[in-house]
Amino acid sequence: MSRFLNKKYRGLAAYEPGEQPQDKAYIKLNTNESPFPPSDGVLDALSRDAAARLNLYPDPECGELRSALAAQYGVRPENVFVSNGSDDILSFSFMAFCGGDTEVVFPDITYGFYKVYAEFYGAAYREIPLTEELAVRASDYYGLQKNIVLANPNAPTGLTISLKEVEEICRTNPDHIVLIDEAYVDFGGESSVRLTGRYENLITVMTYSKSRSLAGARLGFAIADEALIADLNRMKYSTNPYSINRLTLRAGTAAIRDQAYYDANCAKIAEIRERAKQELKRQGFFCTDSKSNFLFVKHPAASGETLYRELKENGILVRHFTKDRIKEFIRITVGTEAQMEALFAALRKILSEKTGGTR
Amino acid sequence: MSRFLNKKYRGLAAYEPGEQPQDKAYIKLNTNESPFPPSDGVLDALSRDAAARLNLYPDPECGELRSALAAQYGVRPENVFVSNGSDDILSFSFMAFCGGDTEVVFPDITYGFYKVYAEFYGAAYREIPLTEELAVRASDYYGLQKNIVLANPNAPTGLTISLKEVEEICRTNPDHIVLIDEAYVDFGGESSVRLTGRYENLITVMTYSKSRSLAGARLGFAIADEALIADLNRMKYSTNPYSINRLTLRAGTAAIRDQAYYDANCAKIAEIRERAKQELKRQGFFCTDSKSNFLFVKHPAASGETLYRELKENGILVRHFTKDRIKEFIRITVGTEAQMEALFAALRKILSEKTGGTR
Repeated sequence: MSRFLNKKYRGLAAYEPGEQPQDKAYIKLNTNESPFPPSDGVLDALSRDAAARLNLYPDPECGELRSALAAQYGVRPENVFVSNGSDDILSFSFMAFCGGDTEVVFPDITYGFYKVYAEFYGAAYREIPLTEELAVRASDYYGLQKNIVLANPNAPTGLTISLKEVEEICRTNPDHIVLIDEAYVDFGGESSVRLTGRYENLITVMTYSKSRSLAGARLGFAIADEALIADLNRMKYSTNPYSINRLTLRAGTAAIRDQAYYDANCAKIAEIRERAKQELKRQGFFCTDSKSNFLFVKHPAASGETLYRELKENGILVRHFTKDRIKEFIRITVGTEAQMEALFAALRKILSEKTGGTR
Repeated sequence: MSRFLNKKYRGLAAYEPGEQPQDKAYIKLNTNESPFPPSDGVLDALSRDAAARLNLYPDPECGELRSALAAQYGVRPENVFVSNGSDDILSFSFMAFCGGDTEVVFPDITYGFYKVYAEFYGAAYREIPLTEELAVRASDYYGLQKNIVLANPNAPTGLTISLKEVEEICRTNPDHIVLIDEAYVDFGGESSVRLTGRYENLITVMTYSKSRSLAGARLGFAIADEALIADLNRMKYSTNPYSINRLTLRAGTAAIRDQAYYDANCAKIAEIRERAKQELKRQGFFCTDSKSNFLFVKHPAASGETLYRELKENGILVRHFTKDRIKEFIRITVGTEAQMEALFAALRKILSEKTGGTR
């Protein structure tokens, strides 16, 4: 930190992204990427000819991609905002709508970045505890008259609330923003996009990083009432108008044409996830009923920290959080069948040493 | 604008980027892109194999690229910050260092985004008029005891100040930031990077968008004292940690290996620029002595607005600014020889109609 830094940013903790170690090849089950490559259509769109035009700026309005997304989701291009990953949209939303007199509310256990954004932008915030079962109790958010941010499915639990519950949250907080972060919706949630047009306070945020196999391309989008999209564009045009790589815009449009490939991948991941839950339960784990592309599990014989560390020693990266209510858990991204077999084997080995040791 | 938008952002004007029309093919001399494609090494780095790994997040620390840039500029990786275009770095710098009690100072005629950032982040600012000749008078910035932001070469004039003058600005404002925006330095300026290590208040900002033919890839970097780089990283990690496309990181490193290609392109552009100045003067234009990849010119027989509009009708896009002191000017990006010949012909045609009309 320099002595020049504005006082308001001193002492803030930044978000800690999951490890992206560059030292050796791990089985990476720690940052919820898709184990499948982008579709052939996307790879075709990223041709040498297209790359040879990288000397030119991208279209700052992202017109083609916004039209394609609008068609896919049954809204108008004016209802679509695209950005450099969905974190960018979350950041803009906290910037645009929080702070001032308005408190923002989110669960105590959720995507860790919401709290970072609230603090960074000087917004008052309140965390509402999940239930004992680590679920969001939707009714806790009815009629709050505060801005509300919910991941659905929630991270890192993978648990969902229903579309009807989201609607009730929107309906009973008409003068405040309801942001639904659907990073993981394609693996088993119900999207709130169909409420667009009925609730002018709703913002649905999605990403190409998970179900669309493009975490490395940096592309997220939001669907909302036209006036909210205009606000997000104001944030973008006031900070970094050319925020999306020219090739990424092409990839985003091409991915929509290959939706069948991505749907099949999501179905495959959901299948592997359900089988993994069975296997992990057989090994003695408690698993939340995740509808996402990750599992959230704990074991009576080994702490979350131990499991994280010993899996890493075995060449497998998973995510561990130090937060009190969930420090016994690890979050495991659903990988390919082969990756999951390697995980199961490593866990069997680790756990047999523990239970052997305590006998 | 929605009724939910935070009051502080109401009524702000966003930066207006140059036109990127998607309707038809223009000769694009309006946004200072390189007319040359990226090098073969860069295109090789953006291979189908590399694209097939876009399902994985990029390295948020951008370690490989930062090391390569550090080696190129003779600094340490800790002195290098990379970001999603240099606008992103400017935005972070205003966010991190301005506002609070500190006023920020920049010229009245310069990159229009500085004022947008100051207003957006609620920073008090002062604009110092350029001289009659549209030059930055460096001594106006000595001992101000305020944050200072200067483009060098300046935009849209293309005029430079010397390294000695930059040093004097840094030396006499030791308790404030001096940000030198070197977007155009490779076409004929002197970089302040060599002052890094001597002045802990200096930030030099550069971009891959101009001399490195990668405007479409979104990549900028800053070189500064380690503590300032830590501050910029804090902004990045608090807003959007994975801000750079995985392929863009590869392209950035590959471009450094092909520096000879880019140096040759810059030399070619400088040559074309100098010949263009001669031709435009023959046509009766006043030209600033631009050291950049653009020309800044006006003509007694046609207003800037007229030239802009009639060139566009002739299929050539240039940039026109409505600001009082420079509204008679147009800014013309230096293109290929063929593009410049088309420009000269169009101008001859437009001007012969004017002078014919006034006879």
